[in-house]
This record gives sequence, structure tokens and C-alpha cells, in this order.
Amino acid sequence: MAKITVYAFGWVPPFARGLVRDLRVRWALAEAGLPYEERLIGAEEQASEGYRRIQPFGQVPAYEEDGLVLFESGAIVLHIAERSEALMPSDPGARARAKSWMFAALNTLEPHVQNLAGIDLFHSKEEWAKLRRPSAVEAVRARLTKLSGWLGGRDYLEDRFTAADLLMTTVLRILRHTELVAEVPALEAYRLRCEARPAFEKALAEHMAPFGANG
Amino acid sequence: MAKITVYAFGWVPPFARGLVRDLRVRWALAEAGLPYEERLIGAEEQASEGYRRIQPFGQVPAYEEDGLVLFESGAIVLHIAERSEALMPSDPGARARAKSWMFAALNTLEPHVQNLAGIDLFHSKEEWAKLRRPSAVEAVRARLTKLSGWLGGRDYLEDRFTAADLLMTTVLRILRHTELVAEVPALEAYRLRCEARPAFEKALAEHMAPFGANG
Repeated sequence: MAKITVYAFGWVPPFARGLVRDLRVRWALAEAGLPYEERLIGAEEQASEGYRRIQPFGQVPAYEEDGLVLFESGAIVLHIAERSEALMPSDPGARARAKSWMFAALNTLEPHVQNLAGIDLFHSKEEWAKLRRPSAVEAVRARLTKLSGWLGGRDYLEDRFTAADLLMTTVLRILRHTELVAEVPALEAYRLRCEARPAFEKALAEHMAPFGANG
Repeated sequence: MAKITVYAFGWVPPFARGLVRDLRVRWALAEAGLPYEERLIGAEEQASEGYRRIQPFGQVPAYEEDGLVLFESGAIVLHIAERSEALMPSDPGARARAKSWMFAALNTLEPHVQNLAGIDLFHSKEEWAKLRRPSAVEAVRARLTKLSGWLGGRDYLEDRFTAADLLMTTVLRILRHTELVAEVPALEAYRLRCEARPAFEKALAEHMAPFGANG
């Protein structure tokens, strides 16, 4: 079995704990039953040229497996999912549908969700953020309404849990400082359903552990 | 050969022409040498329940192939790329690297690029947008600098042109109303190199054709 290494931060401020994107990779590995080693980095290493060769934008996560270096949480989760039926069905059409939803989570939902999180968590005292917030909330709400409309009575985005639900859940979690998900009962139930998976609980504990030690 | 249908808008305002995401899919199909039919929709169909079943967020593009319905430009380009060596090498490691860059284009670059485009093209007269613009520009510039740092003397993000370069080019194009790409010569050369491909020119012409007829 290939040795897998996941790069994550050894410390982040409390508001970011439980949200940093290495959680996605840890969760995918837990669903797939793959062991990994974590490699915790700090601000100095993050800004180094050496790390830039691993992660061109200086972000986490990054991922190593037998000399293959990958970055971008979406791509890493996809890489794991492509080799585990726990994360993606074997039927080619169903796989393509799951990938549509993976990109929807990260390219249609997350930019608006992250925009609001940036306003609230980084810029809340700035004048532009106060003026912008109402329309930023509406942009998020519009997408959540459509997502909820799609889900309807479904338990998952498609017929079963896939890597797309994993990513979508981590996007919804970014809104935990608001009531936006809670105010849509079908979405809140969906988030809780996904977070109740043992693999999520394992991944979250492993993501949080360094912050306890380094808190 | 499967019949492929690409959903696109029959009309968009001039500032959006050449930027709507069906261009990505048309380009990928052109690189892969796959014929397709376009299905042009208007505002009424876009907002319809029927279209919501095809594209849950009411966006374009959507894609049909032998009863398989896909959405999200990134996922559709990936679907095409997975079956064409014109868009992705056959080596598994190189494929995984290309996917890292596909997600980087759409999840690390595009949110900041689109944020600035929204400020400039939709909200430029609003007070928040005037106050926010300088830091939004800096956020874009920081990512462009890192992208350029990665490219260095390379012609493409990895060893050869892939679907990742296709997506990255379409993200850089969103900045065409600014000098942000032009002021980084390596990036401008990269954009022009990718746009000089015959498949891009064909796709752009096909993307623009309806606007000429319906302009």
C-alpha cells in the first residue's frame, strides 16, 4: 500500500478550526479506509519556496503518494474517490454525475459562501463589508434555495453518498457562524446526515487534534 | 458516436460575450474533435422547472450525451478530457496533476477573479464596490503572481497543454477589462499561447455566433 502524506496546518485561529480544507482529504481517506501520515506546517514553511513547489499557492492541503504530489482539496478528494467505491459508484454515468456535483460544490456554492465568510470573519468592521453583507447573504441564500430544491426528499445529491456530498457538506459548514443553513430544514438535515458518518467524525477529530496540542 | 448537446445562452449582454462558460465546453469538444449540437436557451427557459432538472442552479452550460445529463463547466470539461488524449495525458500521475490544476483554476483563481469582475461589471457604482475594489485587486494579483511564479519559463502548467490550461485560460480571460494579466508578461504570453490554438478559435466563433444573429 502506498504511503500517503497529507499536509495541514499545525495551528489555526479558533474560528478556522473544523473548516480548513485538509478536513476534506482526511474525510475522504477515512471513507476509503486508507491510512495516512499528517505533515503539519507552520507559517514559515507555508511561505517557503520549497513548499511552493508542492503547493504553488502556499495553501493546504497538499498530498503525497509514492512521489506523486497533488494539491487542491477537490482534486485530492477526486483522486481518492476514483479508487474507492465508498466515495463514488462504479457506473460511469453515476461517476460523471458525482463529478458534476463536486464542481458545483466548489465552483457554484463555495465562492459565494466563502465570500460571506470573508466578510463576517475577516472584514466585519470595514465599511464596505457592512454595505456589502446584505447582498452577499442573498447570493448565498439563492444558491442554498436551489440546492434544497434539488435535494427535495433525497438523502444525498444523487442516489447514494458520494465524494460530492462530502465536499458539499464541508461547504455548508463554512456557514456555521450564521443561521443560513439551519433556516432550510432539508439542508440542515442533509448536513447533519453527512456529518453523522463515522468517517467524518474520525476525520474531524484528526483535523482538530493538533490545535488541542498547539492551542 | 454519441450525440452531444451543449446548452448555452442565445443572447447575453456584450460585456459577457466571450466569457460565458459554455465556451469552455465548446473548446474542449473542439480539442477532442467531437461534434456537438448547441441548444440555445433564453431567460424564460433558464428559469423554468424543466431546466432546473437539467441544471439545478439555472446556469449554463449543461451537457447531454446519450441520456447522461451533466452540468458545471469544470465537470463537463473533465468528462470530455477523460476520454481524449488531446486534453489529458494517459499517464495516471500526469492526469492527477492536470486535475489539481483544473481545480486550482476554478477554486483558487476563479473566485477572486470573478469577485473583481462582479465589482467592475455589475456593482461599480455602489459604494461598497468602490471601497472594496483595491483589496479585491490585491487578492487577484497575489494569485496571478503565484501562478506566474509556477509557470516560470514553462509553456503550460505541466509538461503539455491539458484541460487545466483550457480552464485557466478562460479564467484569465475574465480579467480582460483590466491590465492585471497584461502586466505579468509570462501570464499574458501563456494566455495568448493557449488562445492561439485552432480549437479555441473555433470554439470562440461558435460561442459568439448566436450573439451576432441575436445581437
